[in-house]
Amino acid sequence: MIGGDLSQLIVKPTLLLDPNRAMRNIEHMATRADHSGVRLRPHFKTHQAAAVGAWFRARGVTAVTVSSVDMAAYFADHGWDDITIAFPANVRQHRAMNDLAQRVRLGLLVESVDTAVFLGQHLTHFVDIWLKIDVGYQRTGLDWQDEAGISAVAVAVAQFPHLRLTGLLTHAGHTYHAQHTAITDIYQQTVTRLQRIQASLQRQGYTVALSLGDTPSCSLVETFSGIDEIRPGNFVFYDVMQWQLGACREEDIAVALACPVVAKHASRQQIVIYGGAVHLSKEMSAEGDYGRIAHLTENGWSASHPTARVISLSQEHGIVQADAALFAQVNVGDLLVVLPVHSCLTANLNGRYLTLNGDWLEMARF
Amino acid sequence: MIGGDLSQLIVKPTLLLDPNRAMRNIEHMATRADHSGVRLRPHFKTHQAAAVGAWFRARGVTAVTVSSVDMAAYFADHGWDDITIAFPANVRQHRAMNDLAQRVRLGLLVESVDTAVFLGQHLTHFVDIWLKIDVGYQRTGLDWQDEAGISAVAVAVAQFPHLRLTGLLTHAGHTYHAQHTAITDIYQQTVTRLQRIQASLQRQGYTVALSLGDTPSCSLVETFSGIDEIRPGNFVFYDVMQWQLGACREEDIAVALACPVVAKHASRQQIVIYGGAVHLSKEMSAEGDYGRIAHLTENGWSASHPTARVISLSQEHGIVQADAALFAQVNVGDLLVVLPVHSCLTANLNGRYLTLNGDWLEMARF
Repeated sequence: MIGGDLSQLIVKPTLLLDPNRAMRNIEHMATRADHSGVRLRPHFKTHQAAAVGAWFRARGVTAVTVSSVDMAAYFADHGWDDITIAFPANVRQHRAMNDLAQRVRLGLLVESVDTAVFLGQHLTHFVDIWLKIDVGYQRTGLDWQDEAGISAVAVAVAQFPHLRLTGLLTHAGHTYHAQHTAITDIYQQTVTRLQRIQASLQRQGYTVALSLGDTPSCSLVETFSGIDEIRPGNFVFYDVMQWQLGACREEDIAVALACPVVAKHASRQQIVIYGGAVHLSKEMSAEGDYGRIAHLTENGWSASHPTARVISLSQEHGIVQADAALFAQVNVGDLLVVLPVHSCLTANLNGRYLTLNGDWLEMARF
Repeated sequence: MIGGDLSQLIVKPTLLLDPNRAMRNIEHMATRADHSGVRLRPHFKTHQAAAVGAWFRARGVTAVTVSSVDMAAYFADHGWDDITIAFPANVRQHRAMNDLAQRVRLGLLVESVDTAVFLGQHLTHFVDIWLKIDVGYQRTGLDWQDEAGISAVAVAVAQFPHLRLTGLLTHAGHTYHAQHTAITDIYQQTVTRLQRIQASLQRQGYTVALSLGDTPSCSLVETFSGIDEIRPGNFVFYDVMQWQLGACREEDIAVALACPVVAKHASRQQIVIYGGAVHLSKEMSAEGDYGRIAHLTENGWSASHPTARVISLSQEHGIVQADAALFAQVNVGDLLVVLPVHSCLTANLNGRYLTLNGDWLEMARF
């Protein structure tokens, strides 16, 4: 069903998924979590598909992370009963959160006294509360140095019996701006900072777990010590961005967009593909392109071309800058394969996957 | 149903649509097309919704443009029977194109002899063939100066009785890199270039119509002369990009994303909204931001804040850089309104609209 046979199924932009690579990525992360004695609570925002979730379940994963209340409801409907919504609690959805808390073990993120009090007053079922800590990324969360602020939120949570003060949670997203050993340095610094707050809260009588979760550090750290839980998500598929960071190898990338060639322009050696911003997203790589180019093979897709790049995207068009050899090799009606810059955003746009086995896997649509 | 009442319906990122603004935009474009004696064949990729299409039909529009075979099928299912797919014909979808050609008047774009011959050999129903001409944008199409190449494709088309050589079609997308009078200069140049080819083909015995269609020039040109058809799409909603180009006023922007506030960070005067790359797209404005900030009002939404911008987007998070006054005014649980940089990509991500009348309008999902 691969290569020539698979191509018969592809008439328009189609997100290919290599199950072997994805399962190998899951196995590799789960094995290191097991060896380190930490819980792997993978982030399912990357794939958003019950069928991919089942691959994690088969590997023994029982708890998951999501990024929205709707995504939590989708995975609850597919049998997951321990779900953390790793996004600052959106108080406007308190009714849906309360409904969810009735049927699953639900974790919520809190980073202000106001939100803690609101949840305490509006939820009626037990929830786990994680304090969102900013260890330096400066996107969101309580500043790790703000001991008084963190303590105040802990106290606010603890006054409500149905809010279980469970832990400290962070996303060290600044690893996406680092590479290789700088990433593991950030990881060590993150653990140290979380442990400092943990000790401070312990002195106040609060015992909290530690959860962290960016794919770059979770991919590059060999042993996780001093923490309780990791929440990487992107690693199931990886992408060009992670490859550029050194967080994966090219052969770990498990999704790619197959795109029909619709035009060629010899004067500028450009190939026009049917595959645009509504398929790939406008996430740009550090090198300024929107994806690398490969070919369908008997076993999936080839290694990427050394220089060919998607250099521009319109709503439905992609422009591939080729070299003379690639330009000569490709004809209108052929398929080119694009390795995405950011697999989470690309997956979200496509709605379903075609596996290399020829199966269509549906995603949730929110 | 506006302002306070509307806000009760909004618990998560929600794409608001102001029907009065959209209908005024339609009226303005249709009136100028009527006065100029050209056909308005609006591009429906912007809204992708049968209900919005109905507003065009009510204004007398009978022919439309789409960007994919699937979008053509969706609008055919909703009663449109004259549809041009303004994208280089994707020969891998020839069966679906042939099915469509059986039930609607279908226009296809051709820019190579190979594609012309393929369509001639594989389609059995009549289709309109437009030669895609590149008047300088350099995305796709036959170079306007390549008289021999254009003639060869015309001859290839004309040999098949069921391929009707209908016209020359261009998208002068380089207007998106111009402003104000530079845009109308490009328009004039585009018409001159198309007319030159038209005359050349006329000498060879081929009578062809002329179609052009970017929103900037169609918005700024007062009278369309020398052409037969305009195909703007974005104008129904406009957006920050068009506003920056001078193609519309801020008060013409007809869609905006309502986003719950989920966190505030006083040390950097930043507001975190639930509204990220999966709602807005990662299209960046010329100023380097991802959208402008407004407030819900009794009548819809306010004028945008002079300096507040969405400065960063993750999958679900948006970071708003506020000033002291805005920061003090907004609380967790409130709604902020984001004027999108590129309404087509934003609409595509959201799946439905909430009108200011409180109606939900569903979009196609492809």
